[in-house]
Amino acid sequence: MNARTEIGEQMSTIVGVIGGGQLARMMIPAAVNLGVDIRVLAEADGMSAELAAASVGDYRDLATVLAFAETVDVVTFDHEHVPQAVLKELVARGVAVHPGPDALLYAQDKLLMRKRLAELGLPVPDWASVTDADELAVFLADHGGRAVVKTARGGYDGKGVRVVSHAHEADDWFLALAEDGNDGALLVEELVDFRRELAQVVARRPSGEIAIWPVVETVQLGGVCAEVIAPAPKSAGRLSDLAADIAERVANGIGVTGVLAVELFETTDGRLLVNELAMRPHNSGHWSIDGSITSQFEQHLRAVLDLPLGGTALREPWSVMVNVLGGPSEGSMADRYPAAFAEQPTVKVHNYGKDPRPGRKIGHVTASGADLDTVTYQARATAAFFQD
Amino acid sequence: MNARTEIGEQMSTIVGVIGGGQLARMMIPAAVNLGVDIRVLAEADGMSAELAAASVGDYRDLATVLAFAETVDVVTFDHEHVPQAVLKELVARGVAVHPGPDALLYAQDKLLMRKRLAELGLPVPDWASVTDADELAVFLADHGGRAVVKTARGGYDGKGVRVVSHAHEADDWFLALAEDGNDGALLVEELVDFRRELAQVVARRPSGEIAIWPVVETVQLGGVCAEVIAPAPKSAGRLSDLAADIAERVANGIGVTGVLAVELFETTDGRLLVNELAMRPHNSGHWSIDGSITSQFEQHLRAVLDLPLGGTALREPWSVMVNVLGGPSEGSMADRYPAAFAEQPTVKVHNYGKDPRPGRKIGHVTASGADLDTVTYQARATAAFFQD
Repeated sequence: MNARTEIGEQMSTIVGVIGGGQLARMMIPAAVNLGVDIRVLAEADGMSAELAAASVGDYRDLATVLAFAETVDVVTFDHEHVPQAVLKELVARGVAVHPGPDALLYAQDKLLMRKRLAELGLPVPDWASVTDADELAVFLADHGGRAVVKTARGGYDGKGVRVVSHAHEADDWFLALAEDGNDGALLVEELVDFRRELAQVVARRPSGEIAIWPVVETVQLGGVCAEVIAPAPKSAGRLSDLAADIAERVANGIGVTGVLAVELFETTDGRLLVNELAMRPHNSGHWSIDGSITSQFEQHLRAVLDLPLGGTALREPWSVMVNVLGGPSEGSMADRYPAAFAEQPTVKVHNYGKDPRPGRKIGHVTASGADLDTVTYQARATAAFFQD
Repeated sequence: MNARTEIGEQMSTIVGVIGGGQLARMMIPAAVNLGVDIRVLAEADGMSAELAAASVGDYRDLATVLAFAETVDVVTFDHEHVPQAVLKELVARGVAVHPGPDALLYAQDKLLMRKRLAELGLPVPDWASVTDADELAVFLADHGGRAVVKTARGGYDGKGVRVVSHAHEADDWFLALAEDGNDGALLVEELVDFRRELAQVVARRPSGEIAIWPVVETVQLGGVCAEVIAPAPKSAGRLSDLAADIAERVANGIGVTGVLAVELFETTDGRLLVNELAMRPHNSGHWSIDGSITSQFEQHLRAVLDLPLGGTALREPWSVMVNVLGGPSEGSMADRYPAAFAEQPTVKVHNYGKDPRPGRKIGHVTASGADLDTVTYQARATAAFFQD
């Protein structure tokens, strides 16, 4: 397939992004810099990536996605929700899809992900596939009476995740699975005794090259990422080597193309366990826009175009990213720019163009510098201007 | 005037850019990050800033520009060629225009610029306004028999500039002025004995705040900027203070809003003389996209929106920018990415999406790091991949 567009005489490569959220939006600056034509299939008008929205339609509809794919050279994603049937039909018709369906499957289904990671010998929490309260009761009994239950599909930002201490606390989910009639199961995992959460972001191109950023610490509030510290404090040496090795084995083992984020638990006894996978630019990599030589968004474009990957060195010893969650109760983020910019002239502000709404990620800020305490203060102080 | 657009419920500020070249293009990433809606009035389809092109039309046509201005909150520019009559009418109708016509005038007319800078007591080369060969002969006789003659209007990248050693070498330009019948004159300047050329880029917002980047060295080839070294080697102290002081006095004296670039000669006896002014983001500031905390493009948006300006510190001790002039004789810049990216993974490549053509600026590359020799090599080696 070749849909290269003619601008004057110059042929430019077209990357098609399915989904018009902030991840698609943040690919736009990288695409502009590299002279890559980017076209977005958005879910609705007025989405975050509207500037590059070439069409609006349902990503679950084969005809819609096929029509979009015909206008681009490579298809990639703002999210992992495009159905396997649609993805496989694209591949069958010769469309370059990155990441491909065989990899995306493991970001779409947490049970399959756990099985695959276990096959690959990667460290994961104790887990089981459970189809009723009795099976859940057995797992609970074996794990001190508490566990985390997760729906295999559809969860994000803490949704579809529940800590239970009784076998009947997931009955509503078991009932829903029974009604679906797809022989579905829930994932149950041990409640990991962790010191902190880390994330290892890497990129892999189809020809196999892998680029690895430093492992970062992520701070979650209510299941939602609130802050990221890059690199993770006290991670140099063993921990960063271990995280990089795990992510590289995941990327190669699953055949991921594009950016892969591996969310990790650092246990109280110093092990790393894989928590979740995301096969796209990820919140834990947003710091790289300002803090790394190559941002995860530029890297994702390089990777899906099978171009040599960019350097992943830090621009400054420390970067701290703080999400803007919810936003101001009145007005917009931009209304707070005069105060925020005057106070913090060196903090980079990223505004996703989304309406403020409680708990919604509408932007992020990144501070970078030589002193972690200073940049943490700067980033938090700036984000605070955008929240009430 | 308020044309704020509604995206969902969020109102976003709209910056209108007249002209669709690479300077408008490079404002797009900054606008996306800040959540600023950017709309471009392009000269033609397929221009460099096409992604944000809201309309196509002639910037000399009042009705076209007025219609465009009604859709935005503030008007700014990719170039300085919008006629004064059009600019003044915009202002008369209450449109926020940055920089304003009274400032832009001095970027449009080099004779007026020389007169104004002289009034402000700023250091400039010896100069005169000459209307015929006799007057030119007098100037030549007073300045060792050689001088630089410049057309007051319409010159750029070495065009409209001629070194003469005989009074009749500008007869064609005198003839053209006589035919215009506007009592025009040519600018004649001493041939400055300079050590090197520098540029001082600053930004000024309407309320008066000024932000100043380090002074840079510019290397010109055939009147066209080829390389920029930031900061200018051996400029710390006296030279950088002097350059900053000159640019600040120009910005305040002329009332410039937005980014201002002051091109300077460093004379062999250690003085700085003002060569040219540009009232927009400038080639000598492109390094700031990758090498400074705040790029000149983000700063220009902040300034024209009268927002507090961003920090101008260097991200790395040295940045070297090399222009891609002409481009490959066959194919596009992007065709050379596999080789260039593999060789230089840390150099940032900026592709303006323009067709290669001899001498044309179609992109630039920037390398940053702690060692000037290394980054100079990296930037030149990368640019070389894109030229035959």
